[in-house]
Amino acid sequence: MGQQPITFLRQVVALCCYPQLLESPSFPEDAKQRAQRILQDCGGQSLGSYSASQGVECIRQHVADYITQRDQGVPSDWNNIYLTTGASDGIMSILKLLVSGQDTCRTGVMIPIPQYPLYSAAISELEAVHINYYLDEDNCWALDIEELQRAYLTAKQHCQPRVLCIINPGNPTGQVQSKKCIEEVLHFAYEENMFVMADEVYQDNVYSSDCQFHSFKKVLYEMGPEYFNNVELVSFHSTSKGYTGECGFRGGYMEVLNMDPQVKVQLIKLLSVRLCPPVAGQAAMDVIVNPPKEHEPSYAQFTKEKSSVLDVLAHKARLTERILNSVPGIKCNPVQGAMYAFPRIFIPPRAIQEAQARSMAPDMLYCLKLLEETGICVVPGSGFGQREGTYHFRMTVLPSPEKLKVLLGKLKDFHLCFLEEYSQEEPQLSRSSQHQHRENSKPDA
Amino acid sequence: MGQQPITFLRQVVALCCYPQLLESPSFPEDAKQRAQRILQDCGGQSLGSYSASQGVECIRQHVADYITQRDQGVPSDWNNIYLTTGASDGIMSILKLLVSGQDTCRTGVMIPIPQYPLYSAAISELEAVHINYYLDEDNCWALDIEELQRAYLTAKQHCQPRVLCIINPGNPTGQVQSKKCIEEVLHFAYEENMFVMADEVYQDNVYSSDCQFHSFKKVLYEMGPEYFNNVELVSFHSTSKGYTGECGFRGGYMEVLNMDPQVKVQLIKLLSVRLCPPVAGQAAMDVIVNPPKEHEPSYAQFTKEKSSVLDVLAHKARLTERILNSVPGIKCNPVQGAMYAFPRIFIPPRAIQEAQARSMAPDMLYCLKLLEETGICVVPGSGFGQREGTYHFRMTVLPSPEKLKVLLGKLKDFHLCFLEEYSQEEPQLSRSSQHQHRENSKPDA
Repeated sequence: MGQQPITFLRQVVALCCYPQLLESPSFPEDAKQRAQRILQDCGGQSLGSYSASQGVECIRQHVADYITQRDQGVPSDWNNIYLTTGASDGIMSILKLLVSGQDTCRTGVMIPIPQYPLYSAAISELEAVHINYYLDEDNCWALDIEELQRAYLTAKQHCQPRVLCIINPGNPTGQVQSKKCIEEVLHFAYEENMFVMADEVYQDNVYSSDCQFHSFKKVLYEMGPEYFNNVELVSFHSTSKGYTGECGFRGGYMEVLNMDPQVKVQLIKLLSVRLCPPVAGQAAMDVIVNPPKEHEPSYAQFTKEKSSVLDVLAHKARLTERILNSVPGIKCNPVQGAMYAFPRIFIPPRAIQEAQARSMAPDMLYCLKLLEETGICVVPGSGFGQREGTYHFRMTVLPSPEKLKVLLGKLKDFHLCFLEEYSQEEPQLSRSSQHQHRENSKPDA
Repeated sequence: MGQQPITFLRQVVALCCYPQLLESPSFPEDAKQRAQRILQDCGGQSLGSYSASQGVECIRQHVADYITQRDQGVPSDWNNIYLTTGASDGIMSILKLLVSGQDTCRTGVMIPIPQYPLYSAAISELEAVHINYYLDEDNCWALDIEELQRAYLTAKQHCQPRVLCIINPGNPTGQVQSKKCIEEVLHFAYEENMFVMADEVYQDNVYSSDCQFHSFKKVLYEMGPEYFNNVELVSFHSTSKGYTGECGFRGGYMEVLNMDPQVKVQLIKLLSVRLCPPVAGQAAMDVIVNPPKEHEPSYAQFTKEKSSVLDVLAHKARLTERILNSVPGIKCNPVQGAMYAFPRIFIPPRAIQEAQARSMAPDMLYCLKLLEETGICVVPGSGFGQREGTYHFRMTVLPSPEKLKVLLGKLKDFHLCFLEEYSQEEPQLSRSSQHQHRENSKPDA
């Protein structure tokens, strides 16, 4: 999408890969120091050795330092840090560890709806029960504690609810949960003895000036020792989001709090089967948690690149929301964080009938037509889950502002035509003329 | 263990990581070309983008070309190639795909004994049934087809045998299977409709001059189209072994043959949940399957480094076998391939009694004592499985020849003392004097 990598991160990883570059005058000293520090803790001082299954020791320590700093002094023990192959791997491992039982004893996993499909896929794969709690679209996709309780009580009748997944900032919904909401969730988890999985991979992606990222851990700490020493909580982070977007490196970490020591032994055993996370990804994670300091040579460029990515993302989030909301029949909540807009779309009854006739979700029909007619690819809301009778799609806000404007313009035109087409009486005639009209327009991102 | 990385591989990966280096005169042209070719097929020409879940297209094509060349013209279709996060990830994914059922309908997975513990761990995790077939220690750990049939028929009474795993060259046993043996195995798989998982990660690690690596695929091809078009076969490879030993990059591939197209769809779905293998590991895999050509500037150095690693490994394999066989009470089969010796050790009855009293496998007692008294860490045979009443340990042949000699010398001394200690009548007295004697020796690798 044109987003440039952070120079310092790539320098450190390249230096680790090919340490002969440590002699090169074209790399800054702080990048060399980071690389040397990482290599020092690698077997044979090489990125090619297996690391411990939990990750390279100094990187785990840097992660703990980062968390302490992020949470303004809340202590973090590096023994609770596990480096992972992206966040997905950590999420899968924890779910695998927690899911058990058969029939009505099956483990219930509470997931937000809409959700990131990794969760539903993992839950199916593990034969657990997914318990849907619906985010409140009318309240900017906030998590509603009463809805959480409703879902819990209903599910208790046919499974053992044991795990509560939260994505904050939200994917695909882009909301940033308030501190009060997080407190309520943690109180609920405490009362009902739920294991909390906090997917916080978008912690650096907050755009609304009236929103702030609150880590589940910090809120838990502030609720006092009774909570902080008891609620089982795992938080996930990743190199794939934030201002780095280094998805291909498959870097990530998780911090595991209050896990029973005997269960922890099983977690380590489970992680050991897969040997270790990719060490280059671990190095990338190190840079994110241990960026250049103010007095170091790479600080200025790093800060400039970081702000530039985040500022542009914030701009694109507002731009997307504004243009989408200018279209009749589209309603988009503020994109407070993450990288997505998840607008609600009005689909005329006739289009719904056509979709049903084709055994297709109505928003799938919409998205397929959008793709065919404009080349724009977005994901139907039905892939993430949504309240029955509502329709959405997810789009990223990642393209450059110029492309985004063109794309949203085309989307707007498409939507208006779609509404018109399915409000008319004679679909065959009008669709064929539509098609001719659109043949002249070129596909887009 | 002191083995140096292959320069060309690290250059290509570093260039991919930090493409500014493409301008640097200190990198050879062929490394730059490889990096450019890989980046061309990466999203946004960046190692930081997710690749397709099956891997970067040109790397998959290079893998297919490599296989065709390795197998002297047997065709390979890059659509059957999947890049993986090391071989372990591929093995886990395929097992996950194949395992199903409950009670007597559970999937049976045939594994060699001794085996690499990934298999037993994965089978437990997936709640499949492991079906042990014993390798023939008296015949240099060859696979005995009658033993395979025996295991199959016995297992059929309580599960559904469906998967046959073979490790060739063997881990931990170091044997290289003959062509005739592979033919018999494939004939068996054809007759019994078994899905064959060929773990061929040590295909470059063959040391005995009277042995040769035969890929399961090539042998299957030579058995004729009836076999080649029907036997379901997956072969695994990795960046972690061979002459590269790039474990930390978590690179690998699998070639999937004759899989039902509907099952293949599920495989791709399963792989997609985890997004993609680490792209730096994919790039490392590319170098292994697409090394410098004879006319290219890096050819000489690459060839020298590769031969040097493999020649030293061959030397160390012979050295290990020879010294181990010089010790009374230790018997080691030839280390024909892979990276391990798996000697059989005689453990005196009194040591067996002591182990039983401590609820410990006798070879675990042996290995713990070896570790405590010499600092040498080897893995007890009971971790890999062995015929009842026999005892082994696995050691790598990776340390430098100088260290290996010292290490094997200490091991020999330890073994003789161990035999002596447990053959005497008054253990308490003799053990305490042993201990004093050994306190002066420093721990080793």
